Amino acid sequence: MDAANGLEAPQQILETEVKAFFDSAPPLQNCNEINEKLKEFIERNSFPSGNGKARRVVCVTSGGTTAPLEQRCVRYIDNFSSGHRGATSTEYFLKAGYAVIYLYRRGSFQPFCRSLPDDPLLECFEPTNESDIQVREAHSEAVKRAIVEHHAAVADGLLLKLPFRTIFEYLQMLQMIAISMRSLGPCAMFYLAAAVSDYYVPWKDMVEHKIQSGSPLLDVQLVQVPKMLSILRKKWAPQAFCVSFKLETDTNILLNKADAALEKYDMHAVVANELLTRKEEVVVVTNADKITARRDKSQSGADVEDPLIKLISEKHSTFIEDSNRSFK
Amino acid sequence: MDAANGLEAPQQILETEVKAFFDSAPPLQNCNEINEKLKEFIERNSFPSGNGKARRVVCVTSGGTTAPLEQRCVRYIDNFSSGHRGATSTEYFLKAGYAVIYLYRRGSFQPFCRSLPDDPLLECFEPTNESDIQVREAHSEAVKRAIVEHHAAVADGLLLKLPFRTIFEYLQMLQMIAISMRSLGPCAMFYLAAAVSDYYVPWKDMVEHKIQSGSPLLDVQLVQVPKMLSILRKKWAPQAFCVSFKLETDTNILLNKADAALEKYDMHAVVANELLTRKEEVVVVTNADKITARRDKSQSGADVEDPLIKLISEKHSTFIEDSNRSFK
Repeated sequence: MDAANGLEAPQQILETEVKAFFDSAPPLQNCNEINEKLKEFIERNSFPSGNGKARRVVCVTSGGTTAPLEQRCVRYIDNFSSGHRGATSTEYFLKAGYAVIYLYRRGSFQPFCRSLPDDPLLECFEPTNESDIQVREAHSEAVKRAIVEHHAAVADGLLLKLPFRTIFEYLQMLQMIAISMRSLGPCAMFYLAAAVSDYYVPWKDMVEHKIQSGSPLLDVQLVQVPKMLSILRKKWAPQAFCVSFKLETDTNILLNKADAALEKYDMHAVVANELLTRKEEVVVVTNADKITARRDKSQSGADVEDPLIKLISEKHSTFIEDSNRSFK
Repeated sequence: MDAANGLEAPQQILETEVKAFFDSAPPLQNCNEINEKLKEFIERNSFPSGNGKARRVVCVTSGGTTAPLEQRCVRYIDNFSSGHRGATSTEYFLKAGYAVIYLYRRGSFQPFCRSLPDDPLLECFEPTNESDIQVREAHSEAVKRAIVEHHAAVADGLLLKLPFRTIFEYLQMLQMIAISMRSLGPCAMFYLAAAVSDYYVPWKDMVEHKIQSGSPLLDVQLVQVPKMLSILRKKWAPQAFCVSFKLETDTNILLNKADAALEKYDMHAVVANELLTRKEEVVVVTNADKITARRDKSQSGADVEDPLIKLISEKHSTFIEDSNRSFK
């Protein structure tokens, strides 16, 4: 998602665009099942946690969305994102006591699994004899940790995972999650790390069949995805703490774009990251300040998400206190 | 890859296009390592197999290629393909006594693993206690089979796996494989099941940084990928048996397009499949006949690739006999 096209679209035009986007989207397959899961998850985590404070719930979005070019989808435009940021952040949010709704791209990184090879089943296990298998010594700890910690989070009702593929699925599910999290008030957070398509082909404009490839040139015309950050912030989840991301490959424009996004979408924080250094440091941009979170290089295996989530969590605490104060 | 745009490009124009494509492509990262692996694999499998006949080697390509839209790749156009056809076919080729070079899209299906869930590590295993894990009962057989059979094929030197992501990587690696397989003469086969991009943005035309998204419309202009099937068949591997695929969503044009591809690229066989029924039946189109291979529905877990690979393997046998006869 992106900022500042110079002309601020009036709210009404945006709402018309959003309505057109959702009206044209193919219906979500397992809508009822997702709603049931969400309802149960929010109810379970609406009670105060052990320390008497209300449980905080964060929706972490992760991985890239696709924009199909054909209705029976053979070709699509994809946004690169491994899901590493979202998966790692989820681990640190759980550690910080949050319950996490992980809205992730199918096939992207999963929490607790990011240190494993691409194809963990084939690369981490070996046959012992004709009919049995074992974990390879070198991967033993990482594999056990992944399975044990992942299952603990799910079994304790602290991690709900919901997969998407297309921009249509992603935005429909984000809306459902936002509406189901309203009851949590300021204890709800949106941490929008997914790489969301800026452009799409409206479903009704799409050819039904595979685009034929006779012509020497292909001209694909896409329209802008409506700026859903505004709608999320103003309509879907007006009380929640909202964090968006700004990824650029060009450092020179990064902080300006983060500032613009903060203002335009009225975010509470924007995490600015540059493609090549994003695992080393990020800048958390708020109205009050710009704070750099850096990976602790003195510790092997340290993540930039460790200081990042501490910082975001502190900002969320302040936000909750301020919100409660203004309601008194 | 696609057929018949009405005007047949003269061979010389095609060769110029191919040269331009390769000249503009970013250099392959681990080129020397791949060449070493190929050399070793072909040498190992150049000796006659147990029955005194020469070992046959097939290069199976699998999954979709991406066409990057930016040099520091954030956005790209992707071709949908799970890699199910290539992975399953590889299993049946191994069963039929072939050695297989599996040129696959990172993250796509792997041989022997296609009956497992999306995320096998997290879904097939469970913790037994704080520090140990076990395979879930329901997945026990499938997981063991996957690991044992996969490792056996690799350990026996019968399966070499080479991953790609972009159209540039794919075509550079296909060329290297073809050249390394020349020594096998007619015992070499190319089974081109990958979904290869028809269009791409030449590397030199690509913007270096992320495309900015200020404009309400995005117009992506792509040029056609040169028809490499012709070059593979005529230049890279003139003695090999070549099988290509034709996937359409529109049944009405499928067989005509398969016929056109057979003729245009001088393939030995084209496997015609329709998106919705591709796991049930396919048609093997050759100059001599059109034979439908159907999944045996009376057997649970039967694959259409079982009769398909039998048929392709028989056609390859005939081809080898004919080739040897014409050399006498």
